[in-house]
Amino acid sequence: MASKAHEHLLDWLRDAHGMEQQAEQMLKAQAGRLENYPELKARIEQHIEETQHQADLVEGCISKLGGSPSGVKDTGGKMMAMMQGMGGMFTTDEVLKGGIASYAFEHFEMASYRSLIGAAEYAGEPEIKQTCEAILKQEEAMAKWLEDNLPETTMKYLQRDETEGATAKR
Amino acid sequence: MASKAHEHLLDWLRDAHGMEQQAEQMLKAQAGRLENYPELKARIEQHIEETQHQADLVEGCISKLGGSPSGVKDTGGKMMAMMQGMGGMFTTDEVLKGGIASYAFEHFEMASYRSLIGAAEYAGEPEIKQTCEAILKQEEAMAKWLEDNLPETTMKYLQRDETEGATAKR
Repeated sequence: MASKAHEHLLDWLRDAHGMEQQAEQMLKAQAGRLENYPELKARIEQHIEETQHQADLVEGCISKLGGSPSGVKDTGGKMMAMMQGMGGMFTTDEVLKGGIASYAFEHFEMASYRSLIGAAEYAGEPEIKQTCEAILKQEEAMAKWLEDNLPETTMKYLQRDETEGATAKR
Repeated sequence: MASKAHEHLLDWLRDAHGMEQQAEQMLKAQAGRLENYPELKARIEQHIEETQHQADLVEGCISKLGGSPSGVKDTGGKMMAMMQGMGGMFTTDEVLKGGIASYAFEHFEMASYRSLIGAAEYAGEPEIKQTCEAILKQEEAMAKWLEDNLPETTMKYLQRDETEGATAKR
């Protein structure tokens, strides 16, 4: 357990735990603002539940390695800087920018889990690898949904914006 | 040209132009730091050239609509906040976090162009739609490369980190 690879794996799992907490906040803010896009809102609400469960799963992996999710290991605060930047994006009162930011964030999460899968394999931790693969599938499904939904949401936005009395932005 | 859809299309093209300029800066910083990952560095350098050409193409679309890429239309600075957050991420002296950030940023760009494609179709601008589709293909190819390369880069990072005298981070 004292190998360098295990240390990195533990650090990166802590990063992932912080990432899921950030994701939950952002998704809640986003869902809370949406008024005229019920399908998007429902899908985000589903993903909030998934995200909460993912945070628990990652916490389990951290415990398995003898650590605690006491804080993101984040040399120089670079990861937090990025996530705050992304978080700032989610405060936008605009459905399309929010959707684009969500899509980017999902891929940030997906790349993180893919890297974790490689690290778990390298460190000889098949259970952690499996957990990360399961989480990755949920992130991929959410990203796919957002991708499929974006052109339609864009059209709806432009239609609503041309309609007297309709709010397009949220 | 005075339709609301055209106004949005023009605003979003300006956003895309700012996004490509930001991308170029981030990619250059990232490529400049890499020492031990020559394939990643070469692919990033290729994408810097693509990015410069994409900025020109977007500028052409803006001109076609009678505008100028005078600045990102960015109500409340939310888009800049996100891009700066992402930019902060790219200053990390660490190949994996940089790769994850690049991957997320590529998908931010991809979602932006997909939304633009929808908007160009809605506004009846087939040439702009076609240009955005061509750019989207390049972004997708870069994202795919990063995705395929990430597990290997993770392994290499962990191997180098265990090797006496080898630098893993860059």
